[in-house]
Amino acid sequence: MEEISRRLQAIRAQMLEMDLAALVVPRADEYLGEYIPEHNERLRWISGFTGSAGVVIVLRESAAIFVDGRYTVQVRQQVSADLFDMLHLVEQPHVEWLAARLKTGDRVGYDPRMHNLDWQQATLKTLQGAGQELVETPDNLVDRCWQDRPQPEVRSALLLADRYTGRSSLEKRRAIGAAIARQGADAALIFAADSVAWLLNIRGQDIPALPVVLGYALLDANGELVFFTDPRKIPAGFAAHVGEGVTVREESEAAGAFTQQAGRKVLADPKTANAWCQLSLQRAGAKLIAGDDPVLIPKACKNATEIAGMRNAHIRDGVAETRFLAWLDGEVAAGRLHDEATLSERLYEFRAQQELFQEVSFATISAAAGNAAMCHYNHLNGTPASLQMDNVYLVDSGGQYLDGTTDITRTVAIGDAGAEIRRMFTLVLKGHIALDQARFPEGTTGTQLDILARQFLWQQGYDYDHGTGHGVGCYLSVHEGPQRIAKVLNATELRAGMVLSNEPGYYKDGAYGMRCENLLVVTEVGKVADSGKKMLGFEPLTMAPFDRRLIDADLLDDAELNWINDYHARVFSNIGPLLEDDVREWLRQATLPLPGAPRL
Amino acid sequence: MEEISRRLQAIRAQMLEMDLAALVVPRADEYLGEYIPEHNERLRWISGFTGSAGVVIVLRESAAIFVDGRYTVQVRQQVSADLFDMLHLVEQPHVEWLAARLKTGDRVGYDPRMHNLDWQQATLKTLQGAGQELVETPDNLVDRCWQDRPQPEVRSALLLADRYTGRSSLEKRRAIGAAIARQGADAALIFAADSVAWLLNIRGQDIPALPVVLGYALLDANGELVFFTDPRKIPAGFAAHVGEGVTVREESEAAGAFTQQAGRKVLADPKTANAWCQLSLQRAGAKLIAGDDPVLIPKACKNATEIAGMRNAHIRDGVAETRFLAWLDGEVAAGRLHDEATLSERLYEFRAQQELFQEVSFATISAAAGNAAMCHYNHLNGTPASLQMDNVYLVDSGGQYLDGTTDITRTVAIGDAGAEIRRMFTLVLKGHIALDQARFPEGTTGTQLDILARQFLWQQGYDYDHGTGHGVGCYLSVHEGPQRIAKVLNATELRAGMVLSNEPGYYKDGAYGMRCENLLVVTEVGKVADSGKKMLGFEPLTMAPFDRRLIDADLLDDAELNWINDYHARVFSNIGPLLEDDVREWLRQATLPLPGAPRL
Repeated sequence: MEEISRRLQAIRAQMLEMDLAALVVPRADEYLGEYIPEHNERLRWISGFTGSAGVVIVLRESAAIFVDGRYTVQVRQQVSADLFDMLHLVEQPHVEWLAARLKTGDRVGYDPRMHNLDWQQATLKTLQGAGQELVETPDNLVDRCWQDRPQPEVRSALLLADRYTGRSSLEKRRAIGAAIARQGADAALIFAADSVAWLLNIRGQDIPALPVVLGYALLDANGELVFFTDPRKIPAGFAAHVGEGVTVREESEAAGAFTQQAGRKVLADPKTANAWCQLSLQRAGAKLIAGDDPVLIPKACKNATEIAGMRNAHIRDGVAETRFLAWLDGEVAAGRLHDEATLSERLYEFRAQQELFQEVSFATISAAAGNAAMCHYNHLNGTPASLQMDNVYLVDSGGQYLDGTTDITRTVAIGDAGAEIRRMFTLVLKGHIALDQARFPEGTTGTQLDILARQFLWQQGYDYDHGTGHGVGCYLSVHEGPQRIAKVLNATELRAGMVLSNEPGYYKDGAYGMRCENLLVVTEVGKVADSGKKMLGFEPLTMAPFDRRLIDADLLDDAELNWINDYHARVFSNIGPLLEDDVREWLRQATLPLPGAPRL
Repeated sequence: MEEISRRLQAIRAQMLEMDLAALVVPRADEYLGEYIPEHNERLRWISGFTGSAGVVIVLRESAAIFVDGRYTVQVRQQVSADLFDMLHLVEQPHVEWLAARLKTGDRVGYDPRMHNLDWQQATLKTLQGAGQELVETPDNLVDRCWQDRPQPEVRSALLLADRYTGRSSLEKRRAIGAAIARQGADAALIFAADSVAWLLNIRGQDIPALPVVLGYALLDANGELVFFTDPRKIPAGFAAHVGEGVTVREESEAAGAFTQQAGRKVLADPKTANAWCQLSLQRAGAKLIAGDDPVLIPKACKNATEIAGMRNAHIRDGVAETRFLAWLDGEVAAGRLHDEATLSERLYEFRAQQELFQEVSFATISAAAGNAAMCHYNHLNGTPASLQMDNVYLVDSGGQYLDGTTDITRTVAIGDAGAEIRRMFTLVLKGHIALDQARFPEGTTGTQLDILARQFLWQQGYDYDHGTGHGVGCYLSVHEGPQRIAKVLNATELRAGMVLSNEPGYYKDGAYGMRCENLLVVTEVGKVADSGKKMLGFEPLTMAPFDRRLIDADLLDDAELNWINDYHARVFSNIGPLLEDDVREWLRQATLPLPGAPRL
């Protein structure tokens, strides 16, 4: 707390010098991605809070931290209530809160690299409405005061071969360039690091689990591209790999380079690109056209090579998951109730044995019994719990492979889970099956499909408080937009080649939690009668058994029984041949048909 | 055609005088409602087109009409291709089309009473971007040229008793006034005629099927209201009926009255209120706050009195529908295959016998065989067809009763409809049942529920090209927002007391069409486990049998069989006692349980 207090003092000294009444420090860095490297954890430095979302506002005499519902407990453990007021990020919009606390004429400092343009515009409007000023700091005030700030690590990028990407960077850049021209723009700011990685067919090691090279790019409608990043990360052979027309420049040269856009129309996404880039382009004389990142949809719709890679990666990943599940059963049978950390490490070892494996695709959720009721549980925050008999174990994990990204959740019976857990698991599984089996005309969004996964829980008075499915990249981000399956309105139409998770769950506070998660790829399954429209459906990519001991077959209808039996038969035929004898025998038993289903 | 040509000439003379290069004439009047009285059918006057949506643009040397996909055939029949280019309203945005055709400096005339503010703002921006001017005409140029324009009819308003409304106008105005104040406004423009009717507990006869008094109102946050309308429509007893604080003024006095809003904040809905009112308020010195009409949600959520009224109206309406269906069966059995007009008139007679009946709630769709495949079929446009054996007859109709509004579609087998029609009808019915039986937590929108009604059709490769459900007023508009069940994203959460239609269908071009429509009221059915949230569901209001001869019971599961049998039992117990013997016997047979369903 003394350390944090000293840091606040240092920041306030800077604020005084610049005549700032307030400084806004978001939990974000200049790349505005989901993950932030160590050296950019500025909100953590100033507050001690380690959550994945939040905002700190430093005033002259006080400070406040805003976090969402997931973090209301954690923030009280990590942050000093003597130094910070604690507020709810959603219920108490921080800019309105700030404007109400300041006087007319007060100046609010912010670093335009840490916010998107939409935030900047809305904040400007609110503060101006209150007669206050929004002031860009020339550099980041936290960086000025952070004495022992880690150096960014410089790790070489990887040139991803066409046999994994299915399409050369040059082709991609020309196609996206043409799309930019069709929107009436001369160039586009490609800001999201995963969009740049996809466009250049490169991957990086800057952030755990997300294989991007931090930086951003300016893509001309003619396909030429300038990549602003640390050039030391660019390996030999890059020029030949990406083809003609790509220049790499230091990020510090961006402002200068933007002057070449004077008089040109530049497409930029105000929701995802930082305000600094867009304001700098504007000041350089470019005309901004607000629009979605043009890489999003082409990246989301995997091509045939990527889909084949995803299928293969999921078979290898299924081998690892199956070995883990078989091993786990044996350990429990032998009375060895391991702790969550040991289980997570064991699963990692099985994955690491697989060909083309690079790293996990996110921090594994390894949760026993009541811990599984916390959707964002991390066993490393505290003492890992051990398995508990007559309950369940939930494991949500995934891998990054050169040919694809995986994300799977399985819920495992530890001992006799009991009738209540079996009933709830079966309701969740029925939702999983209904979504998997959906057929829908092109034009349908994930918002429309979401209810398929929830309907059986809703009928019985239950729900789960998270989305049903997120997009997944191909050896890229495990949380990839813009497609999504959730209650929240989302206008993105599902298209063939998109990959999404299917992960309904149920959570009983303090008692148990469960989730059934496969990845699905959207496929064309036919046409809509009397219309030229395509009918779409899903194909499951994930290949690992659901725990038959948790299924109450009496609650499944014939079609659902057939689904689980067919899926298990497919898992056995895909994974079985790749397993050693004892594990294959375990899988054979784990995938036996459930009794009672007539073959239709 | 010569007549239309002369009209265009007269308009062009006016345009010349005002130095206008173009004039925009939408299919709308100054009240921007769904229905338009005779004397305001300006687009019909200038083009001959009678459809319910469209825009005409008159240029100096040519003219164009824009209509949507429903009207591409009709427009060619009704409008001269020598005088008008014909364009697609959705695929070819008319303002962009216009801007591209005009020169810099050209002036475009429009009547701000005929457009909402959103249109005006967007059009202004587009034309200004092209260096053109958007010019308000001081009055309507069509009205200037329309020699034999009918006089508006002056019919007295009805004062609707509290026993039908459940809440006095004074109470409503005070509650909405408080809501306006909570939004930080001093007053609100209540523009929609049905909102004003609800607020004052009055109904009118200005438009067929929609019982409103044309006009609009300004509601002060203190509950005082000025109603701008034709004062001749206001009956004796109005002042006592509405309680203190209501003034009635001529519409022509609105601009003057708006000056009293100088310096005040006035809430107005730029999507539904005409531009003239909002621009006039602004010019009078008011500050506009853009927001939803504050009456919409309170009006949509029916109170206990209204729900009871709706239930009762549906029972009487069900008696009429049942008598009609029984009569129809007898006529077909006797070999009398009536035409669509005769059937529609007969149904009207049965309805007109019912207590509290006022008029139909929309123009009846009475469609035999292939005509039923046209969703917006009107047998009055052309020669009414006769019933066709071994096919179906579709009848979509409704009534306005003092205590409620009804809307029901039944599809009837004429002879042996055959296996294909039975299969399709059963798929449609399965969707109807799934939506009827839905349970969903508060916060759920109609966009999320829509798929329940389509899922069985989608699974087999079929779809229908219309929404699944629209909101319905209580002795008000049969198409009432903001709630809706449709593919289109709609952020309105369903709430207890809202009434919606449940009307999936299927249409085979040129062959047959079918729809199963009941009205539903949203009810609270329990709580969501581990949360304070309400769980909601539906209760069907409509009481009339579905045609058992069209149901393929083999395609229904036990729960669906039970649903149809339970619903039919309810219809018989509600409607049966009100019927004469022969019709009751018909209904008894029409509502017999389908075989095969176990009682659960």
